[in-house]
Amino acid sequence: MQKPVVIILAGGANSRFWPLREKSLYRFMDEPLLTKQMNVYRDAGFEEFIVIANPGNRDMIAALVGKEADVAVQSAALGMGHAILQAYNYLAAKDFPPIYVCQVNDVVEAALHQKLMDAYQSGSAASYLAGFTVSDYFPGGYLSVEGDSRIRGLVEKPGAGNEPSDLVNIVAHVHTETKALIDAIDGLYAAKHPSDDHYEVAMARLMQDMRFECVRYEGRWHPIKYPWQVLDVTHFYLSQIDGQHVHPQAKLYSEVTILGNVIIEVGAKIFPGAAIVGPAYIGANTVVGNGALVRESHIGPGCVIGHTSEVARSYLERQVNLHRAVVLDSVFEENVNFSAGCVTANLRIDGGTIKSIVKGERIDSGRDKLGAMVGANTFIGIQSGTMPGVKLGANSEVGAFTNVVSDLPEGTRRYAIQTYEETRATGKI
Amino acid sequence: MQKPVVIILAGGANSRFWPLREKSLYRFMDEPLLTKQMNVYRDAGFEEFIVIANPGNRDMIAALVGKEADVAVQSAALGMGHAILQAYNYLAAKDFPPIYVCQVNDVVEAALHQKLMDAYQSGSAASYLAGFTVSDYFPGGYLSVEGDSRIRGLVEKPGAGNEPSDLVNIVAHVHTETKALIDAIDGLYAAKHPSDDHYEVAMARLMQDMRFECVRYEGRWHPIKYPWQVLDVTHFYLSQIDGQHVHPQAKLYSEVTILGNVIIEVGAKIFPGAAIVGPAYIGANTVVGNGALVRESHIGPGCVIGHTSEVARSYLERQVNLHRAVVLDSVFEENVNFSAGCVTANLRIDGGTIKSIVKGERIDSGRDKLGAMVGANTFIGIQSGTMPGVKLGANSEVGAFTNVVSDLPEGTRRYAIQTYEETRATGKI
Amino acid sequence: MQKPVVIILAGGANSRFWPLREKSLYRFMDEPLLTKQMNVYRDAGFEEFIVIANPGNRDMIAALVGKEADVAVQSAALGMGHAILQAYNYLAAKDFPPIYVCQVNDVVEAALHQKLMDAYQSGSAASYLAGFTVSDYFPGGYLSVEGDSRIRGLVEKPGAGNEPSDLVNIVAHVHTETKALIDAIDGLYAAKHPSDDHYEVAMARLMQDMRFECVRYEGRWHPIKYPWQVLDVTHFYLSQIDGQHVHPQAKLYSEVTILGNVIIEVGAKIFPGAAIVGPAYIGANTVVGNGALVRESHIGPGCVIGHTSEVARSYLERQVNLHRAVVLDSVFEENVNFSAGCVTANLRIDGGTIKSIVKGERIDSGRDKLGAMVGANTFIGIQSGTMPGVKLGANSEVGAFTNVVSDLPEGTRRYAIQTYEETRATGKI
Repeated sequence: MQKPVVIILAGGANSRFWPLREKSLYRFMDEPLLTKQMNVYRDAGFEEFIVIANPGNRDMIAALVGKEADVAVQSAALGMGHAILQAYNYLAAKDFPPIYVCQVNDVVEAALHQKLMDAYQSGSAASYLAGFTVSDYFPGGYLSVEGDSRIRGLVEKPGAGNEPSDLVNIVAHVHTETKALIDAIDGLYAAKHPSDDHYEVAMARLMQDMRFECVRYEGRWHPIKYPWQVLDVTHFYLSQIDGQHVHPQAKLYSEVTILGNVIIEVGAKIFPGAAIVGPAYIGANTVVGNGALVRESHIGPGCVIGHTSEVARSYLERQVNLHRAVVLDSVFEENVNFSAGCVTANLRIDGGTIKSIVKGERIDSGRDKLGAMVGANTFIGIQSGTMPGVKLGANSEVGAFTNVVSDLPEGTRRYAIQTYEETRATGKI
Repeated sequence: MQKPVVIILAGGANSRFWPLREKSLYRFMDEPLLTKQMNVYRDAGFEEFIVIANPGNRDMIAALVGKEADVAVQSAALGMGHAILQAYNYLAAKDFPPIYVCQVNDVVEAALHQKLMDAYQSGSAASYLAGFTVSDYFPGGYLSVEGDSRIRGLVEKPGAGNEPSDLVNIVAHVHTETKALIDAIDGLYAAKHPSDDHYEVAMARLMQDMRFECVRYEGRWHPIKYPWQVLDVTHFYLSQIDGQHVHPQAKLYSEVTILGNVIIEVGAKIFPGAAIVGPAYIGANTVVGNGALVRESHIGPGCVIGHTSEVARSYLERQVNLHRAVVLDSVFEENVNFSAGCVTANLRIDGGTIKSIVKGERIDSGRDKLGAMVGANTFIGIQSGTMPGVKLGANSEVGAFTNVVSDLPEGTRRYAIQTYEETRATGKI
Repeated sequence: MQKPVVIILAGGANSRFWPLREKSLYRFMDEPLLTKQMNVYRDAGFEEFIVIANPGNRDMIAALVGKEADVAVQSAALGMGHAILQAYNYLAAKDFPPIYVCQVNDVVEAALHQKLMDAYQSGSAASYLAGFTVSDYFPGGYLSVEGDSRIRGLVEKPGAGNEPSDLVNIVAHVHTETKALIDAIDGLYAAKHPSDDHYEVAMARLMQDMRFECVRYEGRWHPIKYPWQVLDVTHFYLSQIDGQHVHPQAKLYSEVTILGNVIIEVGAKIFPGAAIVGPAYIGANTVVGNGALVRESHIGPGCVIGHTSEVARSYLERQVNLHRAVVLDSVFEENVNFSAGCVTANLRIDGGTIKSIVKGERIDSGRDKLGAMVGANTFIGIQSGTMPGVKLGANSEVGAFTNVVSDLPEGTRRYAIQTYEETRATGKI
């Protein structure tokens, strides 16, 4: 039986992901999300892949996947249907084989892909759509289901109380009538269908005549859209670590404590008195200094977690330098320097959930603990700190003794009032 | 021989104790002072108790002592004589038995109560008053003594050089001529005796005709009047710990250091690299994080002493949260949050003793090291600190990066200049 | 064969050494530089010494050297030739023996002195001058050499590209024609020779007729002129430690880590969880608290390196108090108090080398890491810090929460804006 070709949607914009970059290629355990996902698809039995990139990430993706996948480019953000159409030539050349439509930034358990493969292989429906079971209202698309599992419609954000079912549409869709689907999408673009839901509308039309089956899923689902969602995905991957994997060429000094499930990569050094509390990942050549504590965190390669630093429930990409710093519930990209005495506040005094301004809109992260999200190459001087949920653009400079209380655009230079005048006066800046 | 009834004076005001609450019920090792004291009286052979409460603490005291003691209420702060008169009905019903007058907030060694009991049981005087031997002038009441031990008068604050003896009057008095004493006090109130020293004046009159004996005492005496005196009492109780008492259901991880005499209660967790240096008390379910140091301190139940925090010579009541904080010579009440990077300064730059404003008056604490006294439910943001001897009222909020240099009334919101404007601008406050 | 008398020049001014004091007597491993140097000369076979002091250090030097050396005083800073002339009477009394001219503040390897002694003993030249081999231009005096080793001239700061050789003149000179040299110098002063290079000019004249030999030297050379150069000399002496020398009366608690070469002196206490990473020196009676880290540093006697403090690549003289502080690439003199939460920044945000203002001139230290240089008896309050390369004069007070961004004259009182007004208002300052 022919295996569906996986169409991996990786062309989404990153505008809500600021100050972080390129969610499709975000590195977890030193591997980009895209190839991590491809491995999972492969484990479920999928064999062919076409990645729909955007002009910004196409080269990186092409270099990354090599001959493992085809790459097509969606020239503008015209919706998911348009993205799928970019696979037209590829699919036509193969006489429109069955397809499996996925988004790289939807992180789910391997079981979901397996379930869809199983359903496809054992059933005779035209399509199989994942249905994520929810107990509370979720502002996404819902499946309207007849009987046990036959999907009769898709309802976008129906509002609490108006849900047609408890099943939310995750983009994990097997289609066997590929030519019909492509034609339906194409027809909508040709007809200048308003809004950007061509794909959903095309499916809705097809399901009038063809059988669409729902594949129920009750596992974990972590979409990446906002920067703080990196923390959920981090936790997801950390929780898959099973046992203590310390590379033989990692150096653990005496009086080091390792609790729970951890991976410690080649060349890492864990100095006396340090503690790693799993689930945790310590990348290659990363140094965890004396008395430092890393809890439930992802520390990429080449980082320095200096003497008595603490990192808890956080993601540090690579070459991050901490020196006696406290980093909680935070995401730090490459080459961030968080100097001695710095702290990320992670708790509102009123105990409420942390809000963050995203593209001008105040978004509730839903988290009662959230630290800072810091773009690459940002340097933060000694004794500074960040208020809960602030975002620091890449290539910024934050002076010593400075409390960052609101988002900083890329390349910002921010100095505390106390020192700015004086620092200028010294000619040091 | 009939045992004297203990009249426990617990109705004193707490106005000089601010920002702390209710000194009579202050909890040491998770037990209120009042019942701790009652246990000590019992150990010396006393069997019956009447507690003189005030309208504010009456219900708490009644609930606490249950059937172990009677409770009477002094409706207004009209002096110690008036307090004793509240026991009139109780004493009359028992035909005016001998009494032992004590203040709950005078913490002394058990030996003193035993000495008074012994003197009473072996002697034939009308009264026995404790005389605390001092070498330097102390601004209290002095005993005027004839021969070895017969008390002939009481002199209030005579001034240095005018002391009638080296014996200061502690409120630890056995009276056998109870009816005569009560009548004398009552007569003074009836005669509208000015000032509030009716009790002392009544005793002074009785000792003209009756024999009042002094019972010398050279042990420790720690009155609680000012908030920093909690530290003396804390030290007093800690120094009574004998050996290392670690509850079998406390969890000590590896590489934990326990030095000296300690009590570690049920459910406490001491993480790797932490050190407890006695004398110290760690309450039930309290967590001492990796690398934290607790020295000569009292940590009540349910506290979190986070990673690399230090607590030295301090009293933390319960549910106090520290995160990489330094707390020295300080008193923190229930549910105080002292965030990451916070420090209590405990030393004047000039090395002098720490002063504190109490009811508008500048009081010298006599201590060359004194941190902060913080009322319940106060939240202090990251990177903040307190100057030596400051007092923070309950239910206050101190923002991040804020140096508290003077006392904060209850419910204060205090933010550092650097961040206040900006923090407002973010809508976070 | 007669051993040359060592003329130790110790009369140099310390004006560029501010805020530090008296470089000739700077204590390394609790021994003043002068006697350390004398021991090294002695090991090379030199037996007689005359120290040229200045009026400010004469008494200290006399007390220090006792009968081990003669002391002469140069009354004013009139150059090296004038300094040597102060030895006239001493030398005349001995009939002008050969001399070895050295500066106490030029720290070199013992091998250099040995080489000069060997050259003198085996050769027949009038003088032997050390020639320090350089690969890059160094702004000092160069030797003009003919053939292998005959010195024909001295060229002061020729400028890059104009060097007459790769040999820089270190003040390590053996002269056998002492009378001729002294007369030549004397003659120049008598003739009111302008500028202060009488010594060099005198040598240049003598070498026209007499043989001056160069003794090549490729070892370490650490002059002390600027305060940060103490760090080079510290490192020099630390790197001579061979093995782990822990005094039997030092106390190392359990779970202490000692790595590399260290000296730990009598009475020192290293508390649980502390780490000493060599090369390092821990002076007598110094306390290294729980979880503290001392790396490649010199900690003099009687210091307290409090709980979780870090000291790296630094020099602390004696009685220095740190409390949860971070001290990096810094020099702290006697009795400095660096309170809880203080940090010395040691890195420019732009990664450039650290500059420092010395006598009004901006000097490049050449170091990409440099912390603070702090004079004796300076007190720095909690949560404060110093910017890279700043110098704090002795007897200063820096308030809490204060970032020192530029040099502070001696006796400065510097308080952060946030707290100064309020602190004044409390009457505490």
